[in-house]
Amino acid sequence: MPLVRISLRAGKSEAYRQAVGEGVYQALRETFNVPDEDRFVVVSEHGAADFQFSKTYMDIARSDDLVIIQITVSNTRNVAQKQALYARIAELLAREPGVRGEDVFINLIEVAKENWSFGNGIAQYV
Amino acid sequence: MPLVRISLRAGKSEAYRQAVGEGVYQALRETFNVPDEDRFVVVSEHGAADFQFSKTYMDIARSDDLVIIQITVSNTRNVAQKQALYARIAELLAREPGVRGEDVFINLIEVAKENWSFGNGIAQYV
Amino acid sequence: MPLVRISLRAGKSEAYRQAVGEGVYQALRETFNVPDEDRFVVVSEHGAADFQFSKTYMDIARSDDLVIIQITVSNTRNVAQKQALYARIAELLAREPGVRGEDVFINLIEVAKENWSFGNGIAQYV
Repeated sequence: MPLVRISLRAGKSEAYRQAVGEGVYQALRETFNVPDEDRFVVVSEHGAADFQFSKTYMDIARSDDLVIIQITVSNTRNVAQKQALYARIAELLAREPGVRGEDVFINLIEVAKENWSFGNGIAQYV
Repeated sequence: MPLVRISLRAGKSEAYRQAVGEGVYQALRETFNVPDEDRFVVVSEHGAADFQFSKTYMDIARSDDLVIIQITVSNTRNVAQKQALYARIAELLAREPGVRGEDVFINLIEVAKENWSFGNGIAQYV
Repeated sequence: MPLVRISLRAGKSEAYRQAVGEGVYQALRETFNVPDEDRFVVVSEHGAADFQFSKTYMDIARSDDLVIIQITVSNTRNVAQKQALYARIAELLAREPGVRGEDVFINLIEVAKENWSFGNGIAQYV
């Protein structure tokens, strides 16, 4: 059910972009109890003028390797689970494809369970 | 008021992408009582590495023709209306441009009515 | 903390797209009390078929210079602040890079404060 949008600077390999999506999916599996195969990830690449960000906000030294991850999920997780998700995404992306923790920006959008249709025009979670 | 984001694999014609937006708009008109001309749709095309999805989740056989539709709307619809929307989008897209029901993924994000400005810096729904 | 997505027709200069992001950031600073350097903006350009919008909805005469701005923010602002934000964005974009008020479309998505990680896998606002 999560729908993941990943935005980053153009120039990384396809394997790199695949790996970012894979890491986010694995972290969702482990910390949000997302079912096996519940994987929907869209990646967009941007030039410098179209990817504007602070290299200092919150005293975090971001680089041009910044990855902005916005995840829409059902509104059923508590704060501890969210903290676990952020930590696990950062950990997995550091390992593969090798993103520095400072370059992992995450935002969650929460929606009702009835707000999803996975195909065939049906609200499968109702 | 709905803002519709449509993501799909690159390679479809302009007429095809136009038709997907048109079908979603018509379904919103019919099931969510969206006013005439309230149409704002952004489409993005992606290569395979940037469009990662399960071909089996929920036993739905998705193909590379998958269309991911994320719609931001005001939070005024009930579950029955949402179910009607999903069904109608799938029905209309099957007809034109010809998307299989299995390839129609829909997510709704709901916001307060005051969260929109349609121009001129004014919150028209307040 | 705001994450800003800007969508517009392809063909504007990099300076123009930078200026739109800058104006939105400045307006957020002034009306939403966003901290200095809290700036995260992603811009995407689209061809005509992928940027479908009404040129008349709400009797607002939109042109191909339409800018669709979707901002994800924490859910801590009241209606008056939102109205001030819309007005200020329109005002600043009219000044630089010169967007007509009719061509400024804004939508807000609100989330809990714990829904952000600005780096290092930590939920900095918890």
